[in-house]
Amino acid sequence: MSEPVKVEVGLGERAYDILIGPGLLGRAGAEIAARLPGARVAVVTDENVAAAQLPVLQAGLEAGGVSSTVITVPPGEKTKSFSHLETVVDGILAAKLERRDAVIAFGGGVVGDLTGFAAGIARRGMPFVQVPTSLLAQVDSSVGGKTGINSPRGKNLVGVFHQPKLVLADTEALDTLPVREFRAGYAEVAKYGLIDRPDFFAWLEKNWQAVFAGGAARIEAIAEACRAKADVVARDEFETGDRALLNLGHTFGHALEAAVQYDGARLVHGEGVAIGMALAHRFSTRMNLASPDDAARVEAHLKAVGLPWRMADVPGGLPDAEALLGFIAQDKKVSRGTLTFILTHGVGKSFVARDVPASEVLSFLKENHPG
Amino acid sequence: MSEPVKVEVGLGERAYDILIGPGLLGRAGAEIAARLPGARVAVVTDENVAAAQLPVLQAGLEAGGVSSTVITVPPGEKTKSFSHLETVVDGILAAKLERRDAVIAFGGGVVGDLTGFAAGIARRGMPFVQVPTSLLAQVDSSVGGKTGINSPRGKNLVGVFHQPKLVLADTEALDTLPVREFRAGYAEVAKYGLIDRPDFFAWLEKNWQAVFAGGAARIEAIAEACRAKADVVARDEFETGDRALLNLGHTFGHALEAAVQYDGARLVHGEGVAIGMALAHRFSTRMNLASPDDAARVEAHLKAVGLPWRMADVPGGLPDAEALLGFIAQDKKVSRGTLTFILTHGVGKSFVARDVPASEVLSFLKENHPG
Ligand SMILES: NC(=O)c1ccc[n+]([C@@H]2O[C@H](COP(=O)([O-])OP(=O)(O)OC[C@H]3O[C@@H](n4cnc5c(N)ncnc54)[C@H](O)[C@@H]3O)[C@@H](O)[C@H]2O)c1
Ligand SMILES: NC(=O)c1ccc[n+]([C@@H]2O[C@H](COP(=O)([O-])OP(=O)(O)OC[C@H]3O[C@@H](n4cnc5c(N)ncnc54)[C@H](O)[C@@H]3O)[C@@H](O)[C@H]2O)c1
Ligand SMILES: [Zn+2]
Ligand SMILES: [Zn+2]
Repeated sequence: MSEPVKVEVGLGERAYDILIGPGLLGRAGAEIAARLPGARVAVVTDENVAAAQLPVLQAGLEAGGVSSTVITVPPGEKTKSFSHLETVVDGILAAKLERRDAVIAFGGGVVGDLTGFAAGIARRGMPFVQVPTSLLAQVDSSVGGKTGINSPRGKNLVGVFHQPKLVLADTEALDTLPVREFRAGYAEVAKYGLIDRPDFFAWLEKNWQAVFAGGAARIEAIAEACRAKADVVARDEFETGDRALLNLGHTFGHALEAAVQYDGARLVHGEGVAIGMALAHRFSTRMNLASPDDAARVEAHLKAVGLPWRMADVPGGLPDAEALLGFIAQDKKVSRGTLTFILTHGVGKSFVARDVPASEVLSFLKENHPG
Repeated sequence: MSEPVKVEVGLGERAYDILIGPGLLGRAGAEIAARLPGARVAVVTDENVAAAQLPVLQAGLEAGGVSSTVITVPPGEKTKSFSHLETVVDGILAAKLERRDAVIAFGGGVVGDLTGFAAGIARRGMPFVQVPTSLLAQVDSSVGGKTGINSPRGKNLVGVFHQPKLVLADTEALDTLPVREFRAGYAEVAKYGLIDRPDFFAWLEKNWQAVFAGGAARIEAIAEACRAKADVVARDEFETGDRALLNLGHTFGHALEAAVQYDGARLVHGEGVAIGMALAHRFSTRMNLASPDDAARVEAHLKAVGLPWRMADVPGGLPDAEALLGFIAQDKKVSRGTLTFILTHGVGKSFVARDVPASEVLSFLKENHPG
């Protein structure tokens, strides 16, 4: 088997490796034992991932001599709640894990965010390992230590910063991922190009089909995305500055997710981000910050890969513009009453815009509202 | 008004002041505005403290131009639960506080631990200020950043390290504290003497009545306790070593609290610690680590101030020795199956003892069990 690609997240005493490649589930025990000798683990996963991939991981842990118990939660965004947090924390404590043991997050971003949070608060912080199984989780949520759950007042409003000790991104594990979820995760891959890697975006425009098909192009895309994310995280671990750029598309996106009440049948996170990125570019055009050509280029690429790119693409209709603005204002990227957005001067030229007038956002939402 | 005593907690960029003295509630607004300019605050308190002291604090905040909302929880150890955590977090988010605002913990250790935890996870960490109103909270729980709630699997098993920005210990606020609670808090004051300040313990043996009466001796005792706590915390913020010494009396004490199901009518935290400290000294004698004279001296002082000091002092009876050991083994100071205790070579000579045989503890519990 070929060696995995290794990307380091440079965070001093909290530094860790991201390993990317096929067959990593089978090596999980060896990789974990090398870094956390003698650790027992609790594997937290959701029902879908358990059905599709758990035996492979368990065999890999056993092969490395790592003993494990399993905690299973239901799939879906609604699982990022206080009640499931309590269940996972209780499972970790019931397994009598100690501070030298570890918790494994085995699943998509939902499992990763929930499990990382649980590991961050059980015994005031236990080591944990991310084993992401969705494309989104491999390129985004498993890296950087942001963990959390949702509140009725907004998404991801409750959580901690808690860095993993290791990230194992097995590219073969993506084979059982529903294609819709793969596509949604691809939105976050493209995001890195749109933030500050225009060459990567151009490469994706040419190679996206190969990325979807699997093989070397997929590994390369995931590795490049992880390098981009690791760079930003190393510069700004606690999101006091630059890291906010990663929210490109997310302010609009979160509002849409909230508007459909996190109903994954209607909109999954990456789809919200896709629409959000298109809206961020279109809004930048309206504010005379970027050329309409750039917005059109982004929309064309999202359309080509089959992602939603406008509000009208959300099935089942949306609340009106005022209500959408309400969701945005409730979002945590609001500061002293003014709105903070990630806007852009064009492809690969995103920036943090503070003091965006809410009135402009409202007019824009009205103009683009489907009905 | 005289200037308060100031004790600094030396934690680098997380350093903060503890101010100790009368009249501090009235100055709360000024002190907070000086450190967190422009911050709005949410005051978290319990029903007893709200009734006894809230108007004084609110006037003090207003006088300093700090606008506030109030979140009230029920009093008592059972409030350190996931469900109240959720309530407090929701209250903070409902008040639309942002990362530059602050949360105030206004109450005893229960309110402090719960509120600090909520502040640590709301928006992944908000500034918070401790305004402790019980003696225990002034000398112990408000300093050092350990926050958390209880789990059915054990006390304080869930939480984060989250340092306050400021601690305001108003010694006048203790005037409405029930005397039983004052006495329980005194156990934690004496603890610092027993850990490594034999002169302080000797001073307390002479001056405890003046400490109970109020005035200069009380301020001095609280200040010395805060200095002791701040020292340990600065040496070992995340409890990987020395800080464990602060658990003197707590392993036995927590087991007793668990045994009475955290029923404050039967045993409050400081009372459990008092019995626990006496047992730790007695057990050290049994292990031939300390002289029986030291154990007798500790017991005599606890008795003199009116604190419980042996298992027979817990009203309503206790489960048997095996069950008590079960509570101890579930406690988080267990490591790889062996028991960790804080034991002592005598007054002011405590140390962390790892690998204490569970069988010895069991025999000891049997010998000292009231029935
Ligand atoms: N922490 C961060 O920095 C960060 C960053 C981006 C997104 N997020 C969060 O990530 C979440 C979205 O993550 P997601 O898109 O992975 O959602 P998800 O975890 O819900 O996974 C998507 C679906 O795919 C299934 N699945 C995952 N892997 C599978 C596999 N290999 N085989 C079969 N089924 C599989 C899951 O069960 C689920 O039904 C959101 O909650 C978002 O807020 C967090
Ligand atoms: N975080 C830490 O480092 C740390 C250290 C020690 C103890 N603790 C925790 O502290 C808690 C115990 O704290 P506590 O003893 O303060 O208990 P508490 O918060 O329950 O307060 C004791 C009682 O006194 C009342 N009260 C408090 N101040 C009052 C006042 N000024 N006037 C009238 N009534 C008042 C409260 O309502 C309560 O009924 C435990 O949960 C323990 O685990 C934490
Ligand atoms: Zn995202
Ligand atoms: Zn205590």
